[in-house]
Amino acid sequence: MTYCVGLLLDQGLVMASDSRTNAGVDYISSYSKLHVFQPAPDRLFVLLAAGSLATTQEVLNRIQRDLDQAANPNPSPYQQSPRVTLLNVNYLFEAATYIGQVSLAVQNEHGSALRQAGASPEASFILGGQIAGQAHGLFLIYSQGNAIEASPETPYLQIGESKYGKPALDRIAYPGLSLDDGARLCLVSLAGTARSNLTVAPPFEVAICPRDKIALSYRLKLDDDSPELQGISRSWNESLTRAFYGLPRFTWEPVDTPTNAAVPNTSTTAT
Amino acid sequence: MTYCVGLLLDQGLVMASDSRTNAGVDYISSYSKLHVFQPAPDRLFVLLAAGSLATTQEVLNRIQRDLDQAANPNPSPYQQSPRVTLLNVNYLFEAATYIGQVSLAVQNEHGSALRQAGASPEASFILGGQIAGQAHGLFLIYSQGNAIEASPETPYLQIGESKYGKPALDRIAYPGLSLDDGARLCLVSLAGTARSNLTVAPPFEVAICPRDKIALSYRLKLDDDSPELQGISRSWNESLTRAFYGLPRFTWEPVDTPTNAAVPNTSTTAT
Repeated sequence: MTYCVGLLLDQGLVMASDSRTNAGVDYISSYSKLHVFQPAPDRLFVLLAAGSLATTQEVLNRIQRDLDQAANPNPSPYQQSPRVTLLNVNYLFEAATYIGQVSLAVQNEHGSALRQAGASPEASFILGGQIAGQAHGLFLIYSQGNAIEASPETPYLQIGESKYGKPALDRIAYPGLSLDDGARLCLVSLAGTARSNLTVAPPFEVAICPRDKIALSYRLKLDDDSPELQGISRSWNESLTRAFYGLPRFTWEPVDTPTNAAVPNTSTTAT
Repeated sequence: MTYCVGLLLDQGLVMASDSRTNAGVDYISSYSKLHVFQPAPDRLFVLLAAGSLATTQEVLNRIQRDLDQAANPNPSPYQQSPRVTLLNVNYLFEAATYIGQVSLAVQNEHGSALRQAGASPEASFILGGQIAGQAHGLFLIYSQGNAIEASPETPYLQIGESKYGKPALDRIAYPGLSLDDGARLCLVSLAGTARSNLTVAPPFEVAICPRDKIALSYRLKLDDDSPELQGISRSWNESLTRAFYGLPRFTWEPVDTPTNAAVPNTSTTAT
């Protein structure tokens, strides 16, 4: 499985993903799911991918081939010169529609063989980015090729194993969050998911894209033993345990009930 | 949907459930999903139910009918005098097996008609309880009729919409938790789920069963406006927000970075 999350904040975008890929429980490996395209200085696209790894990899390869061929007068025999690429779209929603069409084409090519084997070609994507002169934006591209956009009311989008990490987003995400707080929130959401579900795991990747910069300000890849991830996980775990034992007592409990005598030492249980 | 959780603690059992039932989004109602059977002073059974409401209600009715008929020399024409009831099982696992069989019988009776209509007869249960002289125990009864048991390594069991509320359990649940802390943990897990998923909602019911008492010590039904639920939700939300803004800074942030200037007022957003 996979868990990816994108935040649409007033100050810009935060895009984050885990790196675990598994086919069954005995073939577990690590792949980056965060991909950056900057085909020209006036446009930046960050793509998060979940679903069939074969589909998502071929989609990324086709996107790059389209860019190469648009710049090359002698196109590959495998494809006509592409009409739409990330270089010539004029709006971010056109990029989302284009990626949805590429994804559908890949799924259609391999879908019937996969379904006969009981497998699915489906894949979904989160596209964040900005084209100079326009607002930055965030889209969730469904495996059916259509897309929805984040908004101030719903400033985050998720794909993959999204439920475990949603409560933290629901409590804390809002458009006024700073980019650095947004990055921390994504890491908290990722770390909580990885704790509850083995198919989501570090390294966690985070890309921070300040509004109107048309460039990443920071790109992080945090492994299990990175001091930054350990520090955030330890602080979050300790604070949550403290918050829990500080909850109001029931009416039947004496006011001075001590907190649980046998609180386990949580400081050693990172993530 | 539904969310139910049971905790198997050294000091006893905590059983909790929400009360929302929905058929689509335009038929939403409230039903208790926490049911107590005490057919004799030496045995207590608490049953949490998720899945098809028609199935779970008929299962509960059949369990009660079996108890009535076992005590009645003139059984109803609808059923032979039952061989197994909650009154004559000698072990808690026998009660789980019996309930699984009743559930399968109900599902088999209505399944084909339901499946033709695109609906499912499936239901799952959490059974907690104790028979005098034996240890208290906690079982998850699958819709296929088989069951698994909680253990010190996995002291909680969930049915229904379980993912949103799992991270809090994974962080905090352990067998040494007090019963009152266990009840608070169930409420935190329920409230977090209800915040992220509209198909889970108060009133939340909680039953506390101290070990070897063979009786409930407390049974709570907490509505949205109950001071206890509001107090726990508010405290948890405020603590989590504080914990978030107290997380360690990234290396590129100045050490004295102020916490986000525009922190929204969370004290008004209960649950």
